[in-house]
Amino acid sequence: MQLADAQDLDRADKLAAFRDRFVPIDDPGVVAYLDGNSLGRPPLSTMDRLNDLVARQWGSRMIRAWGEGWLELGEQVGDRLGEVCLGAAPGQVIVADSTTVCLHKVIRAAVAMRPGRTEIVTDALNFPTDRYVVEAVAADHGLTVRWVRPDLRAGVSAAQLAEVLSDSTAVVTLSHVAYRSAYLADMAALTELTHAAGALIVWDLCHSAGTVPVRLDAAGADFAVGCTYKFLNAGPGAPAFLYVRAEHRDGFAHPLRGWMGVEDIFAMDEAYRPAAGLRRALSGTPPVAGLVCVAEGAELLGEAGIEQVRAKSLALTRMLITLADEWLAPLGYTLASPRADAERGGHVTLDHPRAAELTPRFIDAGVILDFRAPHGIRLGPAALSTSFTELWTGLDIIRRLS
Amino acid sequence: MQLADAQDLDRADKLAAFRDRFVPIDDPGVVAYLDGNSLGRPPLSTMDRLNDLVARQWGSRMIRAWGEGWLELGEQVGDRLGEVCLGAAPGQVIVADSTTVCLHKVIRAAVAMRPGRTEIVTDALNFPTDRYVVEAVAADHGLTVRWVRPDLRAGVSAAQLAEVLSDSTAVVTLSHVAYRSAYLADMAALTELTHAAGALIVWDLCHSAGTVPVRLDAAGADFAVGCTYKFLNAGPGAPAFLYVRAEHRDGFAHPLRGWMGVEDIFAMDEAYRPAAGLRRALSGTPPVAGLVCVAEGAELLGEAGIEQVRAKSLALTRMLITLADEWLAPLGYTLASPRADAERGGHVTLDHPRAAELTPRFIDAGVILDFRAPHGIRLGPAALSTSFTELWTGLDIIRRLS
Repeated sequence: MQLADAQDLDRADKLAAFRDRFVPIDDPGVVAYLDGNSLGRPPLSTMDRLNDLVARQWGSRMIRAWGEGWLELGEQVGDRLGEVCLGAAPGQVIVADSTTVCLHKVIRAAVAMRPGRTEIVTDALNFPTDRYVVEAVAADHGLTVRWVRPDLRAGVSAAQLAEVLSDSTAVVTLSHVAYRSAYLADMAALTELTHAAGALIVWDLCHSAGTVPVRLDAAGADFAVGCTYKFLNAGPGAPAFLYVRAEHRDGFAHPLRGWMGVEDIFAMDEAYRPAAGLRRALSGTPPVAGLVCVAEGAELLGEAGIEQVRAKSLALTRMLITLADEWLAPLGYTLASPRADAERGGHVTLDHPRAAELTPRFIDAGVILDFRAPHGIRLGPAALSTSFTELWTGLDIIRRLS
Repeated sequence: MQLADAQDLDRADKLAAFRDRFVPIDDPGVVAYLDGNSLGRPPLSTMDRLNDLVARQWGSRMIRAWGEGWLELGEQVGDRLGEVCLGAAPGQVIVADSTTVCLHKVIRAAVAMRPGRTEIVTDALNFPTDRYVVEAVAADHGLTVRWVRPDLRAGVSAAQLAEVLSDSTAVVTLSHVAYRSAYLADMAALTELTHAAGALIVWDLCHSAGTVPVRLDAAGADFAVGCTYKFLNAGPGAPAFLYVRAEHRDGFAHPLRGWMGVEDIFAMDEAYRPAAGLRRALSGTPPVAGLVCVAEGAELLGEAGIEQVRAKSLALTRMLITLADEWLAPLGYTLASPRADAERGGHVTLDHPRAAELTPRFIDAGVILDFRAPHGIRLGPAALSTSFTELWTGLDIIRRLS
């Protein structure tokens, strides 16, 4: 595959114009940014929106701005995320806290909904935070963690999950897209299996939100969490989101009770009375700067359309795999992500015995990517901001420097 | 007291120049902003710093910026807060999450350090979040909440605390400055009493941080939390801070375990191994935009000096009380805050039977303040951004409209 082929793909790319919607990279040393799956780039509109927030809202409306939209922002942006990429009807998604804190809330709430059951299921390759939260909740409540042990280059299959489910299972927590391999789990099938065992499921959407169309409502998912700083371009440490299926909302109770989660915030009542809606999931004061960044990321994605984004993302990762087969396999690289489109999220990991040593060399040469232990090089082109030419050039440098 | 007296005070004010360091209020309807205790105004430098963050760091350094300072920001800004206003030596303060989440972490950690003890003490007038967190932790761990019931216009005295302390007390949680009355608790004395009972103390500094010099190390405080969007001017919902006394750090264990709190973040190890330093208090990815806002707030305060800020704050609230005595007492207002400087934080509450009805009238007339149930009008002049003339004018309008 030649550079001209990549250029042809760029010319045919319906999302090409979105590249100009991001803050230009003011660093001549950057040749290819292939880390959209770790930190998406800033939309230009985010900069404008932050300036408006500081000068007009915070600076001039001041405290009054809480009554002019800030208080509802978490729910409003959550609804918009539900619409543009999560497949969730309004009233079920709220933006708040970090993924870790959101995960703690939903797993605690889910466990409480299955009294008498003694096990939480997750997989040994799940993202560290997911495993730590599951272990912490289990330890706190005398529950046992049942581990699924998938292949490093794949993810949790229905057969593997079926093996550990039983009438002791309270909650299953899985990642929709595996952070290392990019394996895309079959959300509907695994949710159905979990429900058949009488358990509840919590999906971690960190690596799928904004790049893979998620269908939470249709899949029957009970709970979900996810981050917004990857394919949703909301910036470093922007607040996370959580999803609570409508039918679970009234019974949703988490331990991180705070003043923002009660029905009448300014009554400052003696007793904690959770809000009727999903605001009950909140703890402290909403992080407004982060919320407006999430709002801008969601708008940009909504404008492009998640199906278009998925189509380009697959075209990018298909090209990546083609070039890896052609150029990199002979240099000792092996594909550590699924080859089938239907099983692959938005990134690709290539294993190489010397990955740890090679990664800084690539970064120094302007190809920005991630190392993932033990020997993976993780590449995350972003449909809205990465061109085919950029990806081609990045892989060309990897080939030359390996 | 005449307007000319207020103008004289402004001319003599050593902090007067700091008023120009804030984003100008672009709203001719605002006459007096007396709500710095709810939401401090934005420093001009915060706007510059956010633009630098988006364009240069996030936009051009991108993921590499995590290795160029972002990862350490929470600890670095925490140390600076410790220095400029909390009286805490380095390594004991970290900026993260919301006050609610921080409070949950430190109370959970504190309870675990006093196994066998069965009670948590707090006061019935404590801020809702504090009461909810205490109740949630108590319910989760089979503990009992012992309530101190202070006067609405004051706060917890040593005698009142002594009454409820016993060898069953695990943890005491109190606010340094009461959110309603502004009563300033005697941190050193109450901490000593708590320790004499063998218990640990958690201080909520939300209403003192940035306006009252806090001396955490000197007072022997065990833990503390506080928010940054009031007198620290870090913006709506900016991250909170928590303090863990150095001697407790190695034993500090909280349930909100996440990937950012482990010793080697990118090893993505199987087991949760907390970081040696206070980074172990972290859960999810640090909210960088919020952290830079806290950093700017801390710098501005550091430049002014907390002792100067306290001196001007007391001068402002003294003037407020003088004018309230002179103008507002005859109109049915009563002082609901301590008259003695040594017992008063940075704000003043005036009770009036029709406070709920009057508040929106004042706000419409450009005097921005808070209503606090059941019948309080809360005024929070900020030493760095409020002038004596502004305060005088605001009270004049209150007098005319009452």
